Amino acid sequence: MKAAIIMGSISDRPIADKALGIFEKFGVETHLEVISAHRTPERAFEFAKNAESEGIEVIIAIAGKAAHLGGVIAANTTIPVIGIPAKTSVMGGMDSLLSIVQMPKGIPVATVAIDGGENAALLAVSMLGLKYPNLKEKLAQYRVELAKQVDEMNKELDN
Amino acid sequence: MKAAIIMGSISDRPIADKALGIFEKFGVETHLEVISAHRTPERAFEFAKNAESEGIEVIIAIAGKAAHLGGVIAANTTIPVIGIPAKTSVMGGMDSLLSIVQMPKGIPVATVAIDGGENAALLAVSMLGLKYPNLKEKLAQYRVELAKQVDEMNKELDN
Amino acid sequence: MKAAIIMGSISDRPIADKALGIFEKFGVETHLEVISAHRTPERAFEFAKNAESEGIEVIIAIAGKAAHLGGVIAANTTIPVIGIPAKTSVMGGMDSLLSIVQMPKGIPVATVAIDGGENAALLAVSMLGLKYPNLKEKLAQYRVELAKQVDEMNKELDN
Amino acid sequence: MKAAIIMGSISDRPIADKALGIFEKFGVETHLEVISAHRTPERAFEFAKNAESEGIEVIIAIAGKAAHLGGVIAANTTIPVIGIPAKTSVMGGMDSLLSIVQMPKGIPVATVAIDGGENAALLAVSMLGLKYPNLKEKLAQYRVELAKQVDEMNKELDN
Amino acid sequence: MKAAIIMGSISDRPIADKALGIFEKFGVETHLEVISAHRTPERAFEFAKNAESEGIEVIIAIAGKAAHLGGVIAANTTIPVIGIPAKTSVMGGMDSLLSIVQMPKGIPVATVAIDGGENAALLAVSMLGLKYPNLKEKLAQYRVELAKQVDEMNKELDN
Amino acid sequence: MKAAIIMGSISDRPIADKALGIFEKFGVETHLEVISAHRTPERAFEFAKNAESEGIEVIIAIAGKAAHLGGVIAANTTIPVIGIPAKTSVMGGMDSLLSIVQMPKGIPVATVAIDGGENAALLAVSMLGLKYPNLKEKLAQYRVELAKQVDEMNKELDN
Amino acid sequence: MKAAIIMGSISDRPIADKALGIFEKFGVETHLEVISAHRTPERAFEFAKNAESEGIEVIIAIAGKAAHLGGVIAANTTIPVIGIPAKTSVMGGMDSLLSIVQMPKGIPVATVAIDGGENAALLAVSMLGLKYPNLKEKLAQYRVELAKQVDEMNKELDN
Amino acid sequence: MKAAIIMGSISDRPIADKALGIFEKFGVETHLEVISAHRTPERAFEFAKNAESEGIEVIIAIAGKAAHLGGVIAANTTIPVIGIPAKTSVMGGMDSLLSIVQMPKGIPVATVAIDGGENAALLAVSMLGLKYPNLKEKLAQYRVELAKQVDEMNKELDN
Repeated sequence: MKAAIIMGSISDRPIADKALGIFEKFGVETHLEVISAHRTPERAFEFAKNAESEGIEVIIAIAGKAAHLGGVIAANTTIPVIGIPAKTSVMGGMDSLLSIVQMPKGIPVATVAIDGGENAALLAVSMLGLKYPNLKEKLAQYRVELAKQVDEMNKELDN
Repeated sequence: MKAAIIMGSISDRPIADKALGIFEKFGVETHLEVISAHRTPERAFEFAKNAESEGIEVIIAIAGKAAHLGGVIAANTTIPVIGIPAKTSVMGGMDSLLSIVQMPKGIPVATVAIDGGENAALLAVSMLGLKYPNLKEKLAQYRVELAKQVDEMNKELDN
Repeated sequence: MKAAIIMGSISDRPIADKALGIFEKFGVETHLEVISAHRTPERAFEFAKNAESEGIEVIIAIAGKAAHLGGVIAANTTIPVIGIPAKTSVMGGMDSLLSIVQMPKGIPVATVAIDGGENAALLAVSMLGLKYPNLKEKLAQYRVELAKQVDEMNKELDN
Repeated sequence: MKAAIIMGSISDRPIADKALGIFEKFGVETHLEVISAHRTPERAFEFAKNAESEGIEVIIAIAGKAAHLGGVIAANTTIPVIGIPAKTSVMGGMDSLLSIVQMPKGIPVATVAIDGGENAALLAVSMLGLKYPNLKEKLAQYRVELAKQVDEMNKELDN
Repeated sequence: MKAAIIMGSISDRPIADKALGIFEKFGVETHLEVISAHRTPERAFEFAKNAESEGIEVIIAIAGKAAHLGGVIAANTTIPVIGIPAKTSVMGGMDSLLSIVQMPKGIPVATVAIDGGENAALLAVSMLGLKYPNLKEKLAQYRVELAKQVDEMNKELDN
Repeated sequence: MKAAIIMGSISDRPIADKALGIFEKFGVETHLEVISAHRTPERAFEFAKNAESEGIEVIIAIAGKAAHLGGVIAANTTIPVIGIPAKTSVMGGMDSLLSIVQMPKGIPVATVAIDGGENAALLAVSMLGLKYPNLKEKLAQYRVELAKQVDEMNKELDN
Repeated sequence: MKAAIIMGSISDRPIADKALGIFEKFGVETHLEVISAHRTPERAFEFAKNAESEGIEVIIAIAGKAAHLGGVIAANTTIPVIGIPAKTSVMGGMDSLLSIVQMPKGIPVATVAIDGGENAALLAVSMLGLKYPNLKEKLAQYRVELAKQVDEMNKELDN
Repeated sequence: MKAAIIMGSISDRPIADKALGIFEKFGVETHLEVISAHRTPERAFEFAKNAESEGIEVIIAIAGKAAHLGGVIAANTTIPVIGIPAKTSVMGGMDSLLSIVQMPKGIPVATVAIDGGENAALLAVSMLGLKYPNLKEKLAQYRVELAKQVDEMNKELDN
């Protein structure tokens, strides 16, 4: 089980770290790399073309502003691509969100919430769960944990 | 290979049909149903709980306005859920889009473009491709078709 | 007289506190709980189904981002549900607002301003006033207080 | 049981009719009137001041653009006021929505979806249900009808 | 020459001060008061009705969120009313702006930029200039000052 | 009494006609002209510089998209300038609105609603009323007419 | 003198035709082609890499929704790239606009108005004017024509 | 080779400095000046009219809010004009962006990202590259540097 997390810039690292934390919890191997659709277009092309042969099964692309990274990668591979819009000052990241989610017919990018590092990884895990059934079990356990966190919050309220 | 397409209302049928067309092309069995997170909350709950045991491997949820359907389904299954925001009159579907994509930490919904029926199905196909390698081949062939469509457009231009 | 205030997360506590302050002032008993539409969907369902039998007469639901909590509760009870959109970084909470106010035909959620804790409670009080006439009198007195606050502001200006 | 529906302009009539249909179904008596916060400010003031003594228990205000009607009414009565933002060409009614929902601390207006005539009336019914228990039963039956409508949609799909 | 500056809340004082500074510079007498369209609706009504007889020739209304103050005042006087939308967290004051500028046919409010205290007063001065020609001369001198400020900026650049 | 109505393009004529109708009703002489801030910048400059000496007392500028016309005129005259944002396809005229209302400190443009031809003229009339008291009386009569229109609407409702 | 106009889809043809009309008027040779950043990513890459050697001096890229075409081209050439956002249903093309204009540091795309075919070509002409002085003269003449069009509009007004 | 950078206010200096840094790197001579379309309209007019004869080959205009500077300059010269929208509190600079990019047919302003000082200068360099081929080479080298920066980021990741 292997996922790649690519970022348009090193400044997206905090979002990537949230995804890495989830992948570690679920025992998914990760490849982390800065790839820019605009500053390193050839590397983006090459990365996408070779991802599958390098054992990568799902790709998370983090980018902000005119966030083309996910779309450019998705156009060059048939592996599922998940896009995380990075928060910006334009309506809180609406530029990033629209640049990722509004992909034209033919090449989808699975978009999650702005700055949604954990959810991108959880979505990747649910996809990998199609092939690796034990991930589905772990995901079910994770859901129990989420519910327990809410219980903890309620205990906090009671005090 | 089985995918479910659920709609918040029969009025979302044209979007569902776009997804159905793709699934048919790729030989993916489909289940189509109107389920409302608000008018039939128990059916939504039950559908999500039983989806996996009924052989469903990926779910597409189409909804508009305060589009809670995808989130409500995703909260009750570990199968990947793809959300299609339906176009509305509020900024062209921005209400639907934000209600789907901005899911809080823990429960992602893979969001595609507003009214993006084909792309939701293509995303589902790429997910299923993790388990069924022949879908990946078909997807590669589909990409060739897409490129040919562009060639056709250019021939049209030349005339 | 009993109102419930439910929050999607403990981080919504400051908004809940504003509502609690109002309910205390008007002598309305309150039930406060963290319930997540996505992380504890069964609790949300159960809470809504049992609210009336537990003496709850109005429910305030606070949530942010893809804020489904109010809608999910409203779908499972006939008690009036008031939704408070929590401020987020996406256009200042426009995601929360649209996810709550744009409820489809059949299941309304009474929406107040972003972060509007006091107003949610005041709205609940006006609803309860239909059944408990003394609340209406207290509300009339509260309006006098509001006007006095403006008088105080003008005295401050004069100095 | 008596509700008032007031409109900023006769052009809001189709929205009012949706609310009237619901009130008729639930046996709620209605008062319908065009009142403009800006063109007939004194009538707005007088209407709000006298509403309660005329037996009105809940008020629905429909208005578009800089939609002040609900707020102006709410400022002059302690009866619950529900606001319906009318669709306009500015982002599909975002001007109306923000002018109604963003009421400042002290005077809430219970806001429903843009053009949400039915939901405004259903919200009014749930409020009146606090005082008139038979309305709650009717509301529960209405919910059953809503679910049946979804069933009908699914039968239509099967054909 | 007399202008009134009214604010929906004491928190709008910094915006009012910017307007006061301009009026002082131009020798326009001012009346400053907190008046809330919602918390003191009768005072708003009374103020507007009496403004002209108290010698007020132009009114500036500052308000935020569902900013009804300017519209409520304008509906009750024929004196020109200038509205200043106060900055809020919703898209930087878009709620205030739309609530003021989108006044329906019949009752205009002259809207200036968000937080535009100086410009509201300068607009008032240009209106008063129709009646008091010496204000027009002062305004022409003020324009010369504005140009000099730009010259100063350029001198700063050269160093 | 003389007002100028200038339009960025002949396509703004229907908005201008709404203003002309009001001016005719109030007996205000008008000058109507197409002036483009971008296509005829010198004419815009010259028009603004000479407006006062040609007896013009208030200027209405109608423009859409990057609507600079009002600002360019206002920068070159001390006469009050009223801007009407023309509706466009970008969020219903939000581009026009922001380009007009967000004028920087020093040079205000009195902005009215998108496509608000009547209100621009009514605002001009209220300004002219400072100098010509009979206009104020006419404006008071016009308000009575507005209220009568609402009465007519209510009669229509009764039938 | 040679410019390329590339479109993400044949449906962008009407926008391209507006640009072609301008280029024809100015005697600029054109290359017109449908190239999709997502459906024909290799052609996009190849086109950009070879554009200069094929004598192309400026490139206009037309695209809608998640409009990556301009950015992808600009990343692979040092020729100036002009982007035209195509109108869509999401806030009138705000998705296209933000996807093009918000390019990250390092790779600019010169963005013009939504659907702005003529202006893209006029901008290209002004760029080419740096190298071909006769284009500057033609541009000056074109400005005279624009002014004459305004004169014509005014004659139409007089009739 | 000479470029002008003009700013609507000295507060835009940090954006101008980003452009200056790029021009210095590429050996492009610069003229820097504060010019306000509204406070110094005559200087704006004169600057635009004389720019070409003073050897200026491309103009960058930085402005915020109702950002008319670029359009006013572009209307008075045939030199290419690049507009940089300055960030503001209204949706993060959406007012500035729309006021610049939505120029009407006839007079384009080449718009770059909000606060995009470097990209404006890089765009200017690519335009100047049409006339000065050595700039094209330098631009190609700059692209190599950009790619190296990404390499550096990846080395940082590895540590």
